[in-house]
Order: sequence, then structure tokens, then C-alpha cells
Amino acid sequence: MRATLLHEHAGQKTFAIIFDTGDDPVAGLHHFARKHNLGGSHFTAIGAFQDAFIGYFDWAKKDYLRIRVGEQVEVLSLVGDIAEGENGEPKLHAHVVLGKRDGTVVGGHLLEARVRPTLEVVLVESPKHLRRKHDSETGLALIRM
Amino acid sequence: MRATLLHEHAGQKTFAIIFDTGDDPVAGLHHFARKHNLGGSHFTAIGAFQDAFIGYFDWAKKDYLRIRVGEQVEVLSLVGDIAEGENGEPKLHAHVVLGKRDGTVVGGHLLEARVRPTLEVVLVESPKHLRRKHDSETGLALIRM
Amino acid sequence: MRATLLHEHAGQKTFAIIFDTGDDPVAGLHHFARKHNLGGSHFTAIGAFQDAFIGYFDWAKKDYLRIRVGEQVEVLSLVGDIAEGENGEPKLHAHVVLGKRDGTVVGGHLLEARVRPTLEVVLVESPKHLRRKHDSETGLALIRM
Repeated sequence: MRATLLHEHAGQKTFAIIFDTGDDPVAGLHHFARKHNLGGSHFTAIGAFQDAFIGYFDWAKKDYLRIRVGEQVEVLSLVGDIAEGENGEPKLHAHVVLGKRDGTVVGGHLLEARVRPTLEVVLVESPKHLRRKHDSETGLALIRM
Repeated sequence: MRATLLHEHAGQKTFAIIFDTGDDPVAGLHHFARKHNLGGSHFTAIGAFQDAFIGYFDWAKKDYLRIRVGEQVEVLSLVGDIAEGENGEPKLHAHVVLGKRDGTVVGGHLLEARVRPTLEVVLVESPKHLRRKHDSETGLALIRM
Repeated sequence: MRATLLHEHAGQKTFAIIFDTGDDPVAGLHHFARKHNLGGSHFTAIGAFQDAFIGYFDWAKKDYLRIRVGEQVEVLSLVGDIAEGENGEPKLHAHVVLGKRDGTVVGGHLLEARVRPTLEVVLVESPKHLRRKHDSETGLALIRM
């Protein structure tokens, strides 16, 4: 993972974050967010994965079903945000759309992935942070303000 | 629906707009756009819907076919813009990609939806507005400049 | 293709670029990037195509498989970036998710397309450029910094 600050003005920062073969973008973005104290970010990305686990939130079980996408796929879109959790740590939320060899598509909540050969993320961090709070109905940490 | 201004500088504003269970984001974004006089905005969002109607523009009929997605789905991407209509009112244009329980995906022009439990929108408004004009060939209001 | 500068501040520019029926957005964005010397851009877009060629990078062949989508489709998301190639020329990288008449979805690397009736792109250019370098393992030009 390599990152560069593309632009900074009046407290708003735009970063390019490039992942390489074998990197997990979920772990990498968490690491980057902790290092830079991010908490008011949104991002988009494209690239490719050699393997991924995506999730679907099962409303009855109040938990994510894990779906494995165990093949080389194009990352057609990765859209997400970073907010502050209740413990003050950055929390990542990202959804992904993946394209297969025949052009068919699958997608879900991004749980874990292995990049091959690249994932190109552009992330904008605002000086004002968003905060997530535990929601007792779902068990999820939802943005509240 | 709750909103907060994340950043404002030189006339450009970045908002986070969070929708809750039961909210319709099409109605909510229209309401927000009228209240803040938006007309040069673009946005991305992720979250989940419990029900949605998406459209496909039928070129022969020059109208949208309505497709109901009547189940809990992940909002894998919601991408759109807001421009000024000919009457000066903000006009919303948004396309959505939705992920089902098995990871399969459907999508179209977002007509109407019911959020569950959250939809997290980040919207950037520019001081310069875009304008839509009636296009006689399609019957659609297209951005013209 | 028509373009307007929505916002410019401290070297960062936000453009709206609108494509019309018959335009190829790949050729158009390349043309726009050369004209404005872009090299640190990211963009999102929605709209519709009457015809498109999308690609899937075949890891064994180290080349893109071409998939034709020869029907009117909604452009549900077009996400991409522009960086500088080794010859100093802007290089475009864009992935697309396309929605068909029945709501089903296909997608891949955008190779070529014909717009109908519109494609609405919002592009942000940073003053700091990204650079692509030839990667000997894949034969692709990857962003390196």
C-alpha cells in the first residue's frame, strides 16, 4: 500500500491510496485511517481482486452472511466512508461491485479481499468527523448526528 | 433524515446526509435540495433498502419501465447529481446498484425506495449550477450548458 | 461533449462533462484530459449507452477479453481516474456497471461505448499528478509513487 496527498486546503485532504498484489484493502484502509486520524472520509475505488469475501446483512439473524468470491474479478466500484466509532477508533464501511470473466456481476458489503494487481482509491477527508453509535435494534454501529 | 455540513470553502459545500429506516431517499434528497437551494451537486452513497422501485428507460416508449425490488438489499452504489430544472426547482438524477442475499445484483434508475436501516450519502455542492432542459427527442430533461 | 468548470480553488478543479448521443466517453475523456493537461483526476458518472465494449483482464493471457454489450443500458456507475503515463500523456482508467431492461447487471473495464442520450460525468482534478509505470509482470501501466 502506498499513499500520497493529492490536495489539502482549509482542512480538507484528498489522498490517493494504491494497493498492490496480495494487499487486503479493508486492513489497509483501517491502518491508513488510524495513522492519519481519519473520521470524516468518503472514497471511491476501482481495480481488481484475486479473492474476496462479501457480506449480506441478514435481517433475521442480525448478522452478515459471508459469500466467497474465489476468483479473479474486476472491482467495478468500491464506495465507502470512514467515521469514528464509540471508542474513538476509525470505522470503515464499504460496499463493492465485482465483475467476473463473462461480465456478470456480484456484490455486497466488503469484508475482506486480496488485491491483484492493483486497487486505486481516492479518499476525501473532511475536518469535521462523523460518529457511529451502537444501534440496539440491528446491533450495527450507525452514523448519528 | 439527518444532515451535517462536513466542509465549506470558497462556495463549495460537502454534506453528509444520513437516512434512517422507512425514509425514501428520493423524496428526502429532493427536500434537502430545495431547502439548501442545490443545483450543482454530485453524490455517492451506500447502505441498504427494504424495498425499491428502479427504472429502465425504454427507448421505444420514451418512458421508464418500473421494476420492483421487493426484498432487503444492500445499496452497493448510489451515484447521482442534482441540477436545476427549467422551473428553477432542483432535479435529482440517481442510479443504483443493489445486492441480494446470494450476492447477485440488480440495478437501474432510482425511482423510489425505503431505507433499512441506513443510507449514508456524501454530497458535494458547487456554487455554479447545472441546468436541465427538455429534450424533445426523448422527453427527458437533459443537462445543457 | 460539453464541459463546464463547476469550481476551482487552490489548484483543485471540479468539472461537469456531459456527453450526448453518439459520443464515445473513452475518446472524449482522453481528449478532455489532453486539452486540460489532467493527470491527478478521479470521476464518477451516470447515464446510458446504446452500445458498449467492456473488458475483463485475463490473468493467464495478460490481456483484456472484450465483451460486447450491444443493447440500450443504463450506466449505473462509471468510476475512474486519470494519471500521467510514462510518455507524459494522460491515461484513463474506468470501470462501468451497466443495467439491462430487466434490471440485471453486467460490467467491466470500459473499453469503448456509444452514449444515448446522455452521460453525466463529474471530475475532480488535483494539482498533484499521479504517474503510471509499466509493470513487467502484468504488462499493465500501474500507478506508482
